[in-house]
Order: sequence, then structure tokens, then C-alpha cells
Amino acid sequence: MEILRRIPETRVLVGPEDLEPYRRDESHVAGSAPLAVVQPRSRAALRELVRVAAAEGWGLVPRGAGTGKAGGCVPTPGTVVVDLSAWPREMVLSRTDLTLRASASASLREVKAAAAKGGLFYPPDPNSWESCAFGGTLATNAGGPNACKYGMTRHWVLAVEALMADGEVHAFGIGSVKSNTGPSLAQLLVGSEGIFGIILGATVRLLPAPTDFLTLLLPAQSWTDLLDVPERLFASGLLPSAFEFFDPAVLEDLRRHGPEEARRLPGEALAVLEFDDRGCTAEPFLAALTELLGPIAQGLQLATDARQREAIWSVRRKTSAHLKERYPKKVSEDIVVPRSRIRDFFEGLGRLEIPAVTYGHLGDGNLHTNLLAAGETDPQALEGQLMDLFRLCLSLGGGLSGEHGIGLAKRDAFLRLSDPYQVEALRGIKRALDPKGIFNPGKVI
Amino acid sequence: MEILRRIPETRVLVGPEDLEPYRRDESHVAGSAPLAVVQPRSRAALRELVRVAAAEGWGLVPRGAGTGKAGGCVPTPGTVVVDLSAWPREMVLSRTDLTLRASASASLREVKAAAAKGGLFYPPDPNSWESCAFGGTLATNAGGPNACKYGMTRHWVLAVEALMADGEVHAFGIGSVKSNTGPSLAQLLVGSEGIFGIILGATVRLLPAPTDFLTLLLPAQSWTDLLDVPERLFASGLLPSAFEFFDPAVLEDLRRHGPEEARRLPGEALAVLEFDDRGCTAEPFLAALTELLGPIAQGLQLATDARQREAIWSVRRKTSAHLKERYPKKVSEDIVVPRSRIRDFFEGLGRLEIPAVTYGHLGDGNLHTNLLAAGETDPQALEGQLMDLFRLCLSLGGGLSGEHGIGLAKRDAFLRLSDPYQVEALRGIKRALDPKGIFNPGKVI
Repeated sequence: MEILRRIPETRVLVGPEDLEPYRRDESHVAGSAPLAVVQPRSRAALRELVRVAAAEGWGLVPRGAGTGKAGGCVPTPGTVVVDLSAWPREMVLSRTDLTLRASASASLREVKAAAAKGGLFYPPDPNSWESCAFGGTLATNAGGPNACKYGMTRHWVLAVEALMADGEVHAFGIGSVKSNTGPSLAQLLVGSEGIFGIILGATVRLLPAPTDFLTLLLPAQSWTDLLDVPERLFASGLLPSAFEFFDPAVLEDLRRHGPEEARRLPGEALAVLEFDDRGCTAEPFLAALTELLGPIAQGLQLATDARQREAIWSVRRKTSAHLKERYPKKVSEDIVVPRSRIRDFFEGLGRLEIPAVTYGHLGDGNLHTNLLAAGETDPQALEGQLMDLFRLCLSLGGGLSGEHGIGLAKRDAFLRLSDPYQVEALRGIKRALDPKGIFNPGKVI
Repeated sequence: MEILRRIPETRVLVGPEDLEPYRRDESHVAGSAPLAVVQPRSRAALRELVRVAAAEGWGLVPRGAGTGKAGGCVPTPGTVVVDLSAWPREMVLSRTDLTLRASASASLREVKAAAAKGGLFYPPDPNSWESCAFGGTLATNAGGPNACKYGMTRHWVLAVEALMADGEVHAFGIGSVKSNTGPSLAQLLVGSEGIFGIILGATVRLLPAPTDFLTLLLPAQSWTDLLDVPERLFASGLLPSAFEFFDPAVLEDLRRHGPEEARRLPGEALAVLEFDDRGCTAEPFLAALTELLGPIAQGLQLATDARQREAIWSVRRKTSAHLKERYPKKVSEDIVVPRSRIRDFFEGLGRLEIPAVTYGHLGDGNLHTNLLAAGETDPQALEGQLMDLFRLCLSLGGGLSGEHGIGLAKRDAFLRLSDPYQVEALRGIKRALDPKGIFNPGKVI
């Protein structure tokens, strides 16, 4: 690793105990120990790093805060982890342009806070938003509850800066909502999980911050009642900024064993609804919503202040970690179906007799189906269950991943279940942009 | 052309007078006469067409309604135009999913009308929206006044169906706002101007239709007063759905020689402002806007009914055709700068002494600068003026095209002024996806 130590402005970690934390992210996937971890601080460092990697035949695995859920930043054999945490942090807000330019090393929390300080709003809100790196959200096209109204990270990215295989940092796109100069390499990089290059920063679009929030608990006496709500709600012209849910099993688990805030959650199944429309806290809005929902609205509980709102969101945000703690070997999925097929999905899941519990995003069909007993299931049987689950989603016009990405965790399934043309097309693009296969080898394709 | 006649379910045009209209779009670029024009009606036809084109070494130039402004559908030598007007029209609206799936052959007017019928809203609104083909808006990532609030076509596209170089039609992406299975080929195709494949349809995301519209004429006593408005407005947290403008020369030309509706337009320079926020027609909204704008608000004229609103928009929409009729040899540009640099742009334009008039989108920095005397200008001098104009935009963090695209019209400038790495990257992707160079040869790169 002497050659790495000669790279300027770069910290190099090689001790086994230093490398150990880099083997994992927040998925169930364990990676190899990397050859080394480097923390570059300048473009000169990156240039040299790419040169060395190419010469030595090493892969470069980009890493932000390691909060990914698909193993995208987990090392494959023969790779060096490029930890961007020491990359210079810059953040430039333009209130006139409604844009924020930030480095990959900023946290999403900082990005959202910088926008909020200017009275503006950056919508993407993955569950890890308080700890994840902005760069990670760009590389994985992060989602979150707000995607239901506002779309994914890619819908807000205007321009991207990235280290490419020539060793240079290139700027793709401009900091304006209008820009139309040929195919968008910025959009190709967002969500590419580091296989074409390493994203070092981006300019994103912002909105004026919403000022009114209506947050509600919507308990259902029966699970199927709850599954009727999306159709009724969305076809009515109401567009919640978030619409989350817990199925009966998850809800019961949270109530019995979850955090304090979860002990008195109502219903057999439960949804969290949030609106941020101007005027949504006024009586007429709630009246219209109540009428629209019909009998199920009887159990509606309003968060009447910021503390109650926070308590509701706290439970939702802690659900993943709670289940992980109770069922350390569970496999958590991130499937997605169009909103209109959610009922069909759960009918299909019942028919498949897969032992699974589900929570997640009712508002956009992104369902975090968890196989809690995965650790005790015969690996081949588990594999079969997952493939059945994926095929069910595909048969309903859905997909393998709504927001986590493919990474290492879903690579095999992705390769097996995708249109072979698409896999070949992506591989062709990979060869064109990264002919030596330096960037994040063994991921996605 | 006998070989084309053997293709099933395809009309073939070869007569010189049949081919003539296909040499142009709505840009100033004249193309070659194509070898033939084909109007395929089935996937079998497309498959055979690709096979024949590959065997004969012909290029395939996709064409919708021919309303493009950059020569993207104008034939280069040795090409066959693929006119999609006979492609089967399908349109499927899902009010629960807030999506519309439509074929490329539908018009954008039909797409917007289908959404509106369901109480929904599809934002993209290029000037040609009443006549352009949906497929054309996808291939060119069309913009329009609403982009200022809602973004471009790509921000609304969820999934794309396209004919690729293997002769098959592939579906990229799913009909859900959440989807994260690797790099997005759908986003790569949107705005690719037909160089990677031919888009045959897409699923787009919709919003509940806005119900309140506040449309205003904002006349300015001085041009520079008007240029102060964007900063004041956007930094305040107000986000108009459109913010258009006419500089003094364009305004005077419209008043003297333009359509009837333009005769009494007020001001030295003029803006059209539109808001579609809930409650924007109520008094408090207007009061806040008036206060915010300061003295310039004295001249505000409200459209108080749909007829007045239509009259305002009618002038704006006719501006391009009006100028084209008066100055048939003018060159119309589509440059863009970040909103915060609009003043700097006009100062720079003054310094360059380029004889130009400008109208367009003050709300997103997309400026349609027109060189009216281009026909009488020495070609080399004109070229120099255009390059100066482009360099000015680039120096301000802007770009060569805000919404029209590169096509044939701006290809040389794009190649000269872009980061060479980006051009090579796009060419590499082109070779990977279209190794025989069948699709829209000679465009963009």
C-alpha cells in the first residue's frame, strides 16, 4: 500500500481494525475487507488515485456515511474504499435561483438545514436523512416518504460534479431548471451507484418551504380497509406529502416491543398521513378529507403541535432499526408496485404464503416487506421466496427496488429478472465510461 | 426503395413533393431530402426497418409533428425519416397512480387534455403545445413557461418505451414515482434527441390540477426595473408558475405590427406573471405580491376572467411566429443563464454590441435572443456573434440551450464549446447503444 501513501492530500487506512467498519453498510450484505481506505481531500489526490487504481488493477468503491441499504458501498475483493468524509465541504445557497450547491461530503441534514435557513425546502427525505451523506443520496437516487408528492432525488438534481475514469472531476449540467444540451449525463450519474464515476457534489433545485402541516394518524379496524384508502384519496385530487403505513404484524410488534412513543398506537393497522398544502390546517381541508375517507376517518387522530408531529414521525423512523434489533438476521425488501396495485400485491403475497411483514410507503407503493425469519430459513428456500416476491411485483408493473437501489444486495436478482437488453445496454455504457472497470466493480450489473 | 415497400404495416413516401415538407422543422435549419419517409404502424414494421437500415447503411431520423426548433428531426444525407404519425395511439390515465401512459404519436394537446379530464395536470407546455407530438416533447425534453415552477419534461417522465438498435421495443422504468433499479435508461433517452433510439411512448407523472390562477401583466417604465423583479420575487418565497417577458424592442414591434391583442400592451418593457397556488386569487395574495414588487407594481393589470387570461397568453404564444414572419431570416436563440445572472447577461449583451432583441422566460433564465438581421449579416460575422453570445452564457454558469435542444442547429457550437470529455462520453454511449450509427446520425454529437 506504499503507493497509496504517496498520493498527496490523502489519508490512508490499512490497519485491520480501521478497515473492519468499512465492510458493511446498513444492509444485510457483508463485503470483503478492502485493500485500504483512502480519504482524499483534493482533485490532485483523486487524479493520482485513479492513476494508481488503473495501474494496479484495483477497484475504487465510493463511500459516504455508509447508511445505504443495498450494499452499494460495501467492498468487493481487490478494491480500495474511497471515503469522502474528508472531502472539502462547500455549500452555496441561491435564494434567487432556488438552488443549493453542496459537496458530496455534506450530510443530507446539513443540506436540508441550509435550504430551510433560506426559507426553502429540499424534499428528499430517506429514513437516514439525519445521518446520511448528500453524496450517498445522489449516488443512490434516495427517496423517502416525501417522494409520494415530490419525487425522488433525481427530480431535484440539476447538475452533478463527478470524478470520471480520466481522473478528472467534470461538471455535468448547469444550475438552472432549464437546460437542454444533449442527453443528460447528470441524470445518468444520479442513481448509478458509483459504477460510472464518483459523485463529488451537485446543484439541486429547491422550493419555497411549506408552512402548513397537517399530520394525522389513521388507524384502521381492518387491514383491508386501510388498503382501500390510497385509491380513494389520490383519485380525489388530494396529494399527501407522505402516506406511510404499518401492517398488523409490524404495528403489534411496535406496540409490544417498540419505542415508548409506539406503546399506545391505535388500530389493527395504521397509517400516517401528512399534508403540506397551503391552508391544509384550516377546518375546510380537514372536513373535505374526513368526508372523502368515509367511515375509516372516525379514528383519525390529529397531531396538534410540533411535539405530537415529531412523536408520530419518530415511531415511523425508528421502525427499521427496531425490527433489525429484534430480528438481526431479517431480510428487508424495498419492492415497489404502482399505487393502484397495492391491494393486488398483498393478495398475491398472501397466496404465495411468504412469511413476511410489511411497512413503508403506502403513498407511492414502495413496500418494505421484511422476511423476519430469514436467518432460520433454508438459504435456497429463502432465495425462492425472494424471487417469488420480486416476480409478483414485476407482474404488477412494479420493480425490485423503490428507493434503496441494487448495489450488491439485489444484483443477482436484478440480473436474473431484468430485460437482458437493458443489462447489456448498461454494461455497454459502463465499458464506454469506465473501460478499465475501476469504479465500484461487481455492483448493479 | 423497393426494399422499404416490403416492410409490413408501413406506408412509404418517395415522391419528391411528398418528401419536401420533411426537410424542415420550425428552426432555421434546412436538411437534405430524405431517401424516403416511412410511417410504421407495428413493432414488426420497426424490427424490419432497423434490419433494413443496418443492412443498407441508412440512418433513421425520427419525426413527430416537426415543430422542433433545433433541427433535430431534419434529415441528414443518406437517411430515412421515421414519421410516427401513423403509430397506434394509446392513452391510459390512472387517477389513483396520477400517471398517464401515452404513445409518442399522441399530441401534447391530447395528453394535457386527457390529464385535465381526470382533474389532473401535466405541466410541460412548450410554445407548440397545441400542435407538437408527445414523442417530440420526450425526445427533446421540452420546456415551456411552466418549467419555471414545475421543471422540464424529464422531471415528469417515469418510464419510456423505445425502439433500440436491436430492432426491438424495450420498456425502461416503471409507472411509479419510486423506482430505483440501477442507472436510469429512461432518463438517458429523454432529451437524447433520437440519437440512441426512437421513443414510442412514455408514462408520465401528473399532479392534481391547480384551480386558482392569477395572471398579471407587469409593465415597466424602464427595462432595468423589470430586470430587478426576478431576484425580488423568487427570494421572497413566491414561486410563479410562469414569468415571461418582452424587451423594449420586441414589445414595440408587437405593438406596432403584432396581432390585434398586442396593440395596447403597456410599458417600455413588459412581463407576464402567473401564479397557480391555492388561494392566489384571494386579496391577501395580491396584496403581498404588490408590496413585494414595490413601485413597479403600480402598473399591474390583472386578468380578471378566462378571456383576458387567454388574450395575454395568446400574445405571448404568437410572438415567435410574429417575429419569424417579419424577419424570415432571423436566427432565434435559446440560451439560458441562472435566474440570478439575467441582469449580468443583458449587461454583457450590451457590451458585445450584438444587434439582438430578446423575449422569453424571465422566470427561469431561458432567453430567446433573436438576431433579426441575421439574413443580412456576413455569415462569418454572424457566427462570431453567436459564439460570443454562447460564451457569455457559459461565463455566467449558463448554457447554449434552455429548452430547444442541440439537434443540427447548435451541433457545431456544442462541439466547440463543451468539455471535450463530455462529448467523448456521449459518443462512447452512442457507440455502445447504436454501434452501427443508425439513429439520427449527425445530430447533437
